[in-house]
Amino acid sequence: MTGASWDEWLAEQAAAREAASLRRVLRPRPPDDDAVDLAGNDYLGLARHPDVVAGAVDAARTWGGGAGASRLVTGTLALHDDLERELAAYTGQPTALVMSTGYHANLAVVTALADRDTLVVSDAHVHASLIDAVRLARASVTVVPHGEVAAVRQALAGAAGRRALVVVESVYSVLGDAAPLRELADACAAAGALLVVDEAHGLGVHGPGLVAREGLAGRDDVVVTATLSKALGSQGGAVLGSSAVREHLVNRARPFVFDTGLAPAAAGAALAALRLLRDSPDLPGRVRQRVDDLAASLGVEPPAGAVLSVPMPSPDAALAAQAAALGQGVRVGCFRPPSVPDGVSRLRVTVNAGLPDDAWARALDVLVSVVKEHAGGVA
Amino acid sequence: MTGASWDEWLAEQAAAREAASLRRVLRPRPPDDDAVDLAGNDYLGLARHPDVVAGAVDAARTWGGGAGASRLVTGTLALHDDLERELAAYTGQPTALVMSTGYHANLAVVTALADRDTLVVSDAHVHASLIDAVRLARASVTVVPHGEVAAVRQALAGAAGRRALVVVESVYSVLGDAAPLRELADACAAAGALLVVDEAHGLGVHGPGLVAREGLAGRDDVVVTATLSKALGSQGGAVLGSSAVREHLVNRARPFVFDTGLAPAAAGAALAALRLLRDSPDLPGRVRQRVDDLAASLGVEPPAGAVLSVPMPSPDAALAAQAAALGQGVRVGCFRPPSVPDGVSRLRVTVNAGLPDDAWARALDVLVSVVKEHAGGVA
Ligand SMILES: Cc1ncc(COP(=O)(O)O)c(C=O)c1O
Ligand SMILES: Cc1ncc(COP(=O)(O)O)c(C=O)c1O
Repeated sequence: MTGASWDEWLAEQAAAREAASLRRVLRPRPPDDDAVDLAGNDYLGLARHPDVVAGAVDAARTWGGGAGASRLVTGTLALHDDLERELAAYTGQPTALVMSTGYHANLAVVTALADRDTLVVSDAHVHASLIDAVRLARASVTVVPHGEVAAVRQALAGAAGRRALVVVESVYSVLGDAAPLRELADACAAAGALLVVDEAHGLGVHGPGLVAREGLAGRDDVVVTATLSKALGSQGGAVLGSSAVREHLVNRARPFVFDTGLAPAAAGAALAALRLLRDSPDLPGRVRQRVDDLAASLGVEPPAGAVLSVPMPSPDAALAAQAAALGQGVRVGCFRPPSVPDGVSRLRVTVNAGLPDDAWARALDVLVSVVKEHAGGVA
Repeated sequence: MTGASWDEWLAEQAAAREAASLRRVLRPRPPDDDAVDLAGNDYLGLARHPDVVAGAVDAARTWGGGAGASRLVTGTLALHDDLERELAAYTGQPTALVMSTGYHANLAVVTALADRDTLVVSDAHVHASLIDAVRLARASVTVVPHGEVAAVRQALAGAAGRRALVVVESVYSVLGDAAPLRELADACAAAGALLVVDEAHGLGVHGPGLVAREGLAGRDDVVVTATLSKALGSQGGAVLGSSAVREHLVNRARPFVFDTGLAPAAAGAALAALRLLRDSPDLPGRVRQRVDDLAASLGVEPPAGAVLSVPMPSPDAALAAQAAALGQGVRVGCFRPPSVPDGVSRLRVTVNAGLPDDAWARALDVLVSVVKEHAGGVA
C-alpha cells in the first residue's frame, strides 16, 4: 500500500529511487567551467558564438526582458515575425509559428490537431513531450515498434475513416538514429494521414533538417516541429507547415494561446544562429566529420544525428564512466531508466562543432580510455 | 459529419471560427510602438527597466544564448541556482525550482504529484495550463464552483483515502479576484490534502505573493507555482515549496526533466526584476493605487489583482471598444469565448506601475470614454 499522507508518499517515492540508484540531483555549473561539454545539445557550438550573444543582447535592449503577454494579446513582436519568416524560408516551409519551448511546440501541434476521434500512430522512441502531447489530446494511440514502417501502415489501415496522425522524430534523441521519412510520408499519403516530424535533433545538424533534405518540406500532409534550444543555441520551439495548420494552431493550440510569447533575447539569439547556419553551409559537414571520427574511435556505427549512444552494462557502470570522464575534463551525458526507451543505461556523447580541434582530439582520447575501462573494452 | 480529410477538416474548423466571429490573428508590434500597453502582464513595468535589461544582457554574455541541455544533464547554471535561492527567500519558501515557462511549472507540479489514484479538486476558473496539467495527470477531477470553499470541503470529503490535490490561483487571470487562501488551506489541512496555488498574477503585484501575505508560505501542504513572465518581466516559471516536493519534481516531472533549462537571459532578467522588487517595497503599493483609480473611474469594484475585467455586451462590442481605445493610443486586451470561463466577452485592462503619471492619466480618460460608448455607459 502506498502512504496515505503526502509526506509519507513523497518519502516512499524518494526511498524507492534511492534503493534503485536512480536518484538524480542538479549540479550547477560555474560560468568558468573548463570541462569540454559533450553532453549538451549545442551541436554547432552556436550558443556562445559572438553573433548569437549579440542577437540576444540586442533583442533584450530593443524589446526588454520579456514579451509581456501571450502572442494573441500584445506578446507578438516584430522580432517573432522575422524569426518565423526566416525559419520558414530556411526549412522550405510555407509558415512557422514560434513557441516558448520545443515541448510547447509538440504539445501544441498534437493537442490542436488530435482529439478523441483521432488515431495517433506513434513511434515507440518518441520524446516525452510527444508522448505527453498524445495523452493530453486524449487521442487513441497505437505505439509501433521503433522505425517499423510496415507497422505504421498496418496501424493506419485500422484508422477506419478517422483522421490519423503519425508522430515521429527525424533524428531520435537517445539513439541518434534517423526515421525512414520518405517511406513514412508515402504511408501517410496513401492513408490520408498527417505526418508530424520532430526535427529537434535534425535541424542544424542536417542544415534545414531531414524533412527538407528528403524533399518533403512544403507538403500539406507533413508538419514539422523544432526546438530553438539545441543546434540554434537558444530557447524556444516552432511548428513549421502549411498556413492552414498555422492558422489552426494560432486559434486552437492551448499551449500557444495561453502562454506568454517567447522572450526577446531567446528569439534574437535563435534568429542570429539561424542566419549563421544559413550563411555557413559547411557547418553541418563539420558536425558530420566529428560524428564519424568519434564513432570510429569508439568502434560503434556512426549515427544519423550528432548523438552517440554507448551502451553500458549497468546504471552504476554508466555513472562511474561519466564520473571518470569528468575527472579528466570531459562532460558526457548518462541515461538511465526511466529516461531511456529500452531500459539500457548508456553514455550519451554529443558532438560540438564549435570546439577547437585540439580540445576535440583530447576529448576523444579520454572517451576511448574511459569506455574501455568501464564497458569492458570498446564495444 | 466532420471532413474526412485533414484539408477538409482544417477548412471546416476555420469556417466555423469565421462564422462565429472568433477568428484570431497575430498582430506583431513594432519596437517603437508608442501605444500605452494596458493589455500585457508587465504589471510593475519591469520588462524594460534598465536593470532588468542589464540582467538579460549580462547573463547572455556570461552564459550564451541557451542553457544547452536539460537541467539534469548540463543545463543547470549557477545562475539558475542563484535565481532559485533568491526566489525562495523572497517568497518565504524552503526551495524553488525554475522551469522554462509558467505553463511548464503547472504541468510539472500536477503531473508529478497526481496520477489515476489521486483526486484533484479544481476551481472552475483555473488557467488552461492547470486544466491541461490535470488532464495530463489522468487524475480524477472534481471541478468546484469558482471560489466556493464549501464545495472544496465537500469534494475532499469524497476523497475516500486517496491522496488529494486542491488546485487554485491566488489571483485569477480573467476576473482579477483572489482565492480565499486561508480557508482553502484549512480545508486542505483538515483533509490531509495538498493545496497548489498558482501565483502567476499574485507574485509582485502583492510583493512576495498572497500565499506569503496570508502566512501560508513554508507549509509542507502548500505548493506554489509562479511565472517569471508577468510581474518579473521575463520568461519562465517556478515551483516553490518543500524540499521533498522539489526533489520529487527534479526526478519525476517530465516537463522539467525532458526540457532544456531556462535560457540564461531570461533567468538573468528575472533575477534582476526580483532584486528590484525586493529592494523597492513600495512597488506593489503603486500598482494598488492605480488599480483603485482605474476601478473608481470605470465604476467597477476594485479587483484583488492588477487586472480589471470590464464585461461587454457581445464579442463584437468588445472588439469595437478595443479598436476604439487603440485608435486613441491605448492597448487593452479583449477576451472572448472560448478563452473566458463564463462565456462573457470583456475588455481586460491591466495596470502597469511603470507608466509615467501623465500617460497613465491620459489612458484613464480614453478608457472611460470608450467603455461609456461601447458598453452602454460605465457599468
Ligand atoms: C526530440 C525532442 N523534442 C522536443 C524536445 C523539447 O525541446 P525543448 O527543450 O526546447 O523544450 C526535446 C528536448 O529537450 C527533444 O529531444
Ligand atoms: C494563471 C496563469 N498561470 C500560468 C500561466 C502560464 O505562464 P507562462 O506564460 O509563463 O507560461 C499564465 C499565463 O500565461 C497564467 O495566467
